[in-house]
Amino acid sequence: MRAPAAPRPYVGDMTTSPEQGTSSALLTDRYELTMVEAALRDGTADRRCVFEVFTRRLPPGRRYGVLAGTGRLLELLDAFRFSTAELDWLADARVVDDATLDFLAGYRFTGSMVGYAEGEVFFPSSPVLVVEGTFAEAVLLETLVLSVLNYDSAVASAASRMTSAAVDRPCLEMGSRRAHEEAAVAAARAAVVAGFAGTSNLEAGRRYGLTTIGTAAHAFTLLHDDESSAFAAQVAALGTGTTLLVDTYDVRRGVANALAAAGTGLGAVRLDSGDLGVLAQEVRAQLDEAGAHGTRITVTSDLDEYAIAALAAAPVDAYGVGTSVVTGSGAPTCGMVYKLVARQGRDGTLEPVAKASRSKVSVGGRKAAARRRGGDGRAVEEVLVTGPDERVLGWTPDGDELRALHVPLVADGVVDRGWTGASGVARARDRHRASRDELPRGARRLSADEAAVPTVTLRLGD
Amino acid sequence: MRAPAAPRPYVGDMTTSPEQGTSSALLTDRYELTMVEAALRDGTADRRCVFEVFTRRLPPGRRYGVLAGTGRLLELLDAFRFSTAELDWLADARVVDDATLDFLAGYRFTGSMVGYAEGEVFFPSSPVLVVEGTFAEAVLLETLVLSVLNYDSAVASAASRMTSAAVDRPCLEMGSRRAHEEAAVAAARAAVVAGFAGTSNLEAGRRYGLTTIGTAAHAFTLLHDDESSAFAAQVAALGTGTTLLVDTYDVRRGVANALAAAGTGLGAVRLDSGDLGVLAQEVRAQLDEAGAHGTRITVTSDLDEYAIAALAAAPVDAYGVGTSVVTGSGAPTCGMVYKLVARQGRDGTLEPVAKASRSKVSVGGRKAAARRRGGDGRAVEEVLVTGPDERVLGWTPDGDELRALHVPLVADGVVDRGWTGASGVARARDRHRASRDELPRGARRLSADEAAVPTVTLRLGD
Repeated sequence: MRAPAAPRPYVGDMTTSPEQGTSSALLTDRYELTMVEAALRDGTADRRCVFEVFTRRLPPGRRYGVLAGTGRLLELLDAFRFSTAELDWLADARVVDDATLDFLAGYRFTGSMVGYAEGEVFFPSSPVLVVEGTFAEAVLLETLVLSVLNYDSAVASAASRMTSAAVDRPCLEMGSRRAHEEAAVAAARAAVVAGFAGTSNLEAGRRYGLTTIGTAAHAFTLLHDDESSAFAAQVAALGTGTTLLVDTYDVRRGVANALAAAGTGLGAVRLDSGDLGVLAQEVRAQLDEAGAHGTRITVTSDLDEYAIAALAAAPVDAYGVGTSVVTGSGAPTCGMVYKLVARQGRDGTLEPVAKASRSKVSVGGRKAAARRRGGDGRAVEEVLVTGPDERVLGWTPDGDELRALHVPLVADGVVDRGWTGASGVARARDRHRASRDELPRGARRLSADEAAVPTVTLRLGD
Repeated sequence: MRAPAAPRPYVGDMTTSPEQGTSSALLTDRYELTMVEAALRDGTADRRCVFEVFTRRLPPGRRYGVLAGTGRLLELLDAFRFSTAELDWLADARVVDDATLDFLAGYRFTGSMVGYAEGEVFFPSSPVLVVEGTFAEAVLLETLVLSVLNYDSAVASAASRMTSAAVDRPCLEMGSRRAHEEAAVAAARAAVVAGFAGTSNLEAGRRYGLTTIGTAAHAFTLLHDDESSAFAAQVAALGTGTTLLVDTYDVRRGVANALAAAGTGLGAVRLDSGDLGVLAQEVRAQLDEAGAHGTRITVTSDLDEYAIAALAAAPVDAYGVGTSVVTGSGAPTCGMVYKLVARQGRDGTLEPVAKASRSKVSVGGRKAAARRRGGDGRAVEEVLVTGPDERVLGWTPDGDELRALHVPLVADGVVDRGWTGASGVARARDRHRASRDELPRGARRLSADEAAVPTVTLRLGD
């Protein structure tokens, strides 16, 4: 017997230096480091700052977004340390000066983060993550924070529409081949956060304890001299409960060969081409006629949320989704930004700040967030509250009607482990289900419409 | 002085076992392993097989694709080994049986790969990669091969349209925040293959020797009590040759403040919002009036190939491109597939095979590929040749008129290092420039049209 082991790239340990090659610190834009250099020189690097992550708009027609990636981000945060390998390269490439290299050598994030719980739904302007720390320590994280949240949330936002359209039929993530090989792992995780039942991706299974699925491709059938010997080989190895892919040649003959190989106890057949709705009906009839009433039908050909919805009346038992889920079904990134909303001024007090040029105007000041619920328990609006003093930050929900959205994630540099690893994914999945159920009736329609609830920003305490 | 060092995740060494956590072997779909299990059982795992990678169609309106990722794939291939960590997890999760675990423990790819040179343009059906080996060793690589080539080629295909539209003005890749954090590194690399002059991504700079760029964000200006002190701090740290971001408040005042801080020797100003064409003209006039004739103008707000083309007449010196390049400008994946096209039959001879169901029909048999060029040296058609015997595989170009497209990448499991690392990127960049220049006149128009050259498949030797 082998001892269990589950290595995770980039998951470091704050009490020790990262090993060479496992640091996440260079997964960032050069300007984050040059800004630190300039701020160290003029003494502004230590100014206390608040950065907020939000999106200005949802993708066209989308009614809500789904936050994902928080757990991964917290895992990567631990590995955001500059070891000798990173410092040497920065020195050789003359990215920053020696004083900055010294600062980076001792870098660890000692600030705080609060944010929407992973799996929570969000709307335009929702402050899904709030990072507080010195300018230098907080600005360095910008690129990594956005990379993780933008990609993972794009996948989860698309995946949620698919699981919603599938109602109680399972969706299975099979898109690894249509995404960067590491993005594929994150995509599998994000899809599960949004309700997918499993993934084909083994690394995602290992890192996050996800259910992995998959049996055979067309190549396995083509490898053999005929379909029957391929099916016999698969059943011999994987048992009669396996899923046989029946569309390499002729589907009707494929189903007959499948039943001949596995009997009426065959687990499932998979259809990967053609008019899936019609084929599923024909195959269901053929299976039932043969007495294989328990044999399920999985379909997998270029499905997206619309194709899933269109198959609602077809006798389909599971949807395998590839390209469209890992590419965000038309919206491959979320467009979230990481904006400085408050900073210490010359006199030491925290002041709201915001860009004020012709476009891209933002609201300054740290924001608390809550979801207001009506008498039926359904969401009515997203309420953001900001104000000139710290008192406002302590604003709390008023009974059942207001659900506070920010949860603590990092306190004085210490990551709350409850959001990471496999348990973090399970927690995020539960959060997503509850938050989606709370949306107004109609919010889950696929047709293009406005955000499911409006966002109001209140400025209190003036 | 620090010693130079440049660790690369997943880059192993075939002569030793991969270290824990650096294996790429689980970045794959479960069914690749279950197929191996079933094939080991019935003795078909050792059948000699040929898999080809190709796309059935280009994204709507696109006239050519650009192959990228080959060098990365070869780096990952070396790390595709199952160490104790991977085997333990596969055993614990009961993914495959003990006989398969034993096979995986000894796995290394011992077959061969030929393919289009990285940077080469491709069309529908172009066999951009041909993998030959036993079924078991070749099928295991399917998911990883496709993840790398589909993502990297999607980025390079979009990036090539941008560098084409920019003519001789440099394009700079700044999209890391809108892609998964590791995909961002690959995207930077692919953009440079397609002619981008540099990237904001530091890890890409480290791994592939790319030029990195970037100076400051709006947060740096907002951090300061006023714009002038922010500019003064930046110039003090980075010199007058730096790029100052002038649109945090009012652009005209921003440019005046920039000139006050750096003088007329200021390197560049950056515009990140507003009507860039109009703003660039106003800013150019203001700079010239002040005598800052050498100060360049960089623009960076949500650019894609169309926006770049629309700015052709504006006094812009460089384009910073983010979201659209890392997401493939509307086509975030290439749709390449990895298809079994030939395999040993019961009698030991290599036979062409192909799926033959209602849709997704492929042409069986291993294919050689060449680009036919007309008298003006421009590409006329893509010629694929297949046939029943090995003789056809030795088919060679006929003088200058046919350019053979397959180059050796892996021979008997040994990777040709000429395609990997920084030198591989430089070589791919040169290949891309030459191949794009060879396309017919009009092939680089952005408007939607058919593939720039047709593909013909000849079956010889019957």
